[in-house]
Amino acid sequence: EIAEWLSTAFLPKIFKGKRILVTAGPTLESIDPVRALTNFSSGKMGYSIARVAQAMGAEVTLVSGPTSLTTPLVSHFESVTSAEEMYQAVMYAIAQQDIFIGVAAVADYRPAEYSAKKIKKSGQPLTLELIPNRDIIAEVAAMPNAPFCVGFAAESDDLLKHAEEKRQRKKLPLVVANIASDTMGKDDASIVLLDDEGTHTFSYAPKAELAATLLQHIANIMNI
Amino acid sequence: EIAEWLSTAFLPKIFKGKRILVTAGPTLESIDPVRALTNFSSGKMGYSIARVAQAMGAEVTLVSGPTSLTTPLVSHFESVTSAEEMYQAVMYAIAQQDIFIGVAAVADYRPAEYSAKKIKKSGQPLTLELIPNRDIIAEVAAMPNAPFCVGFAAESDDLLKHAEEKRQRKKLPLVVANIASDTMGKDDASIVLLDDEGTHTFSYAPKAELAATLLQHIANIMNI
Repeated sequence: EIAEWLSTAFLPKIFKGKRILVTAGPTLESIDPVRALTNFSSGKMGYSIARVAQAMGAEVTLVSGPTSLTTPLVSHFESVTSAEEMYQAVMYAIAQQDIFIGVAAVADYRPAEYSAKKIKKSGQPLTLELIPNRDIIAEVAAMPNAPFCVGFAAESDDLLKHAEEKRQRKKLPLVVANIASDTMGKDDASIVLLDDEGTHTFSYAPKAELAATLLQHIANIMNI
Repeated sequence: EIAEWLSTAFLPKIFKGKRILVTAGPTLESIDPVRALTNFSSGKMGYSIARVAQAMGAEVTLVSGPTSLTTPLVSHFESVTSAEEMYQAVMYAIAQQDIFIGVAAVADYRPAEYSAKKIKKSGQPLTLELIPNRDIIAEVAAMPNAPFCVGFAAESDDLLKHAEEKRQRKKLPLVVANIASDTMGKDDASIVLLDDEGTHTFSYAPKAELAATLLQHIANIMNI
């Protein structure tokens, strides 16, 4: 961590005066008092981006789902559990932001009903009804005076097709695409940036390094 | 951790020559490459029991689902993800054991089908079909020459009724009951032991302390 601090301490302070909101980690959607739906996000990429953005001079707000990571030194840190809590935390802070980077693997679905009593095992198959969660980044991007929005797409197949589709559908200027199984939980990742100019590929590197690359790319597009 | 080591270093070595298999943590049941079903177990209770049992002279095998805990110093440590992997790891080691303590919150259900491709969001409700996993502790308890079996029951309601029902149905000499929301993820817990003699309540205490109490209780029943 000291090595990482040293490597980020001398980054150019190009985001001085800018506010950046980053979401990170998985969300946890409770089924009953003991069970939940979740995903394989570790939060490492989002935490790296938050830490590096702060080191580059931004006032960073990090909204994080449950992770086992050390809380980074950012201006504001908010811990949440479910996608709905993450939505509320983002909406509370969004009007003040210049940039929104949605790194969190927000659960697309939650159980249609929460059972306050532990569901007893029956030995028989069980059907779990799921309903869609709100799409945080799509709602942010559709706001009047929306901040510059960066989305993430973790896919298992047809990476660029799915990522560009997401970029168009949610009207995002920039999407970061990666193959889920190569990235989630890992310290290194390889990413593809998709923007109006096309695609930019960055092969395997530590997430802190990719974070700096991504933030520099955002600054370039925004002419900061 | 040094304090905990000091407090366990002088425990009586009553389990010398005994082998104890402990399961701990949640299991993770994959839905697709990014999503999974899980539960709120942190693994703390199971890790405490494994550590204290080893300190009391036993040769401990710990089979653990995914946790963020430091691997304890036990004789054998096996890391698993799904309930089926936990089943295989337990069955591999079980013939050599004198005592089996099933602390893990093993998922009762897994998705009927695993989708190798990430399931795309549709904006519509979704139905997830679940099928029952094998009941590890019930199968162990039903084996000829079964080790002494200790089950755990984390319930949200009707604690003693559900725990005693579990004890009878799975034919376990001892069940440790606790209220899920008071225990899961916490450092302290309050437990009720149910055996042929009735119930024994131990109110709020650190999990390492409850582990020593539980192991002493097991030794008493087994006349060790």
